[in-house]
Amino acid sequence: MKTVVIGANGTIGSLVVERLERAGHEVISVGRSSGALRVNVEDSASVEALFRAVGTFDALAVAAGEVAFKPFAELREADWAFSFGSKLLGQVRLATAALPHLRDGGSITLISGVTSREPIRGGVAAAAVSRAVEGFAMAVAPELPRGIRINVISPTVLDESMEAYASSFPGHESVPGARVANSYLKAIAGGFTGQTLIP
Amino acid sequence: MKTVVIGANGTIGSLVVERLERAGHEVISVGRSSGALRVNVEDSASVEALFRAVGTFDALAVAAGEVAFKPFAELREADWAFSFGSKLLGQVRLATAALPHLRDGGSITLISGVTSREPIRGGVAAAAVSRAVEGFAMAVAPELPRGIRINVISPTVLDESMEAYASSFPGHESVPGARVANSYLKAIAGGFTGQTLIP
Repeated sequence: MKTVVIGANGTIGSLVVERLERAGHEVISVGRSSGALRVNVEDSASVEALFRAVGTFDALAVAAGEVAFKPFAELREADWAFSFGSKLLGQVRLATAALPHLRDGGSITLISGVTSREPIRGGVAAAAVSRAVEGFAMAVAPELPRGIRINVISPTVLDESMEAYASSFPGHESVPGARVANSYLKAIAGGFTGQTLIP
Repeated sequence: MKTVVIGANGTIGSLVVERLERAGHEVISVGRSSGALRVNVEDSASVEALFRAVGTFDALAVAAGEVAFKPFAELREADWAFSFGSKLLGQVRLATAALPHLRDGGSITLISGVTSREPIRGGVAAAAVSRAVEGFAMAVAPELPRGIRINVISPTVLDESMEAYASSFPGHESVPGARVANSYLKAIAGGFTGQTLIP
């Protein structure tokens, strides 16, 4: 099984790559600024060029997308545009452009985040965008052709990242990155679609 | 109580105006292309000018915002930009610009829609945007100053609109518009915040 991982150099992405390789996937690692294959998810042409370079494959796993973290009083139009352009439209672009290159029965796995269900301070745009990603997957699932499935992983903060982000997640239970990576494998290998998994 | 209703000439908005007036509200009706006060929710300057013209008030009720309805295969970047710019950012702009003019303990009531929980064909952008509106309200609620509350009404198709939209909502139970209008009153008068009401 040939799987393209977007954000392969990030904390989550690198764990996903490791987990999928252990499960026997041929992994194509894609980064924004490093790696053999690169993509700017905010640019449709870059996204389309990536999949032309990859050719036919079986699964897309996304662990990339940024949002602005700011108090609401400081959120400007540009912050909203950035957040939707990157984490929502970036993933929509990847899903859209991947479709013609995915084999029958293939799958797409996107990422949202805990802010979709548990607000954190400064996470207003993150909450809106994460909910949007989950709603997108739910609604688009029955429209995908050739048995292709789509799901979302909605991780909370990782054990591996908790030290850096502790002040943003007081009282939150972090989870092992391995559990998040396992969720990607479950979404790719499972038979379900339109679902949001909480690792 | 002085309440500003955006989209006051629409099917839902006109019922909201009627219900609030019956409850004793002084209603300021605002439309896009008709009425004494007008606003283009896609334009921050227009939104800010509206609230300067209104002055101090108690409640904002929004029954406006558009999304593109198309099969996923036909959704383009421009459709996503339109949908987020109107129904999500339009409402974020209204909430942001209303805040300095809202009295202590005032409220903001936004609109999402049934597509946030039940997909309909062609409703991929609607699902994503409606979820985003609900996530926005949930996350921003604790950040609002001076006891100001924010909630979302998520109506399904109205009895009054069912004939026109029947082909998009097969098997859906429509609800009386009066019940949707009642939900706005409940959100404005109630003590809760960050919630999504399903009329």
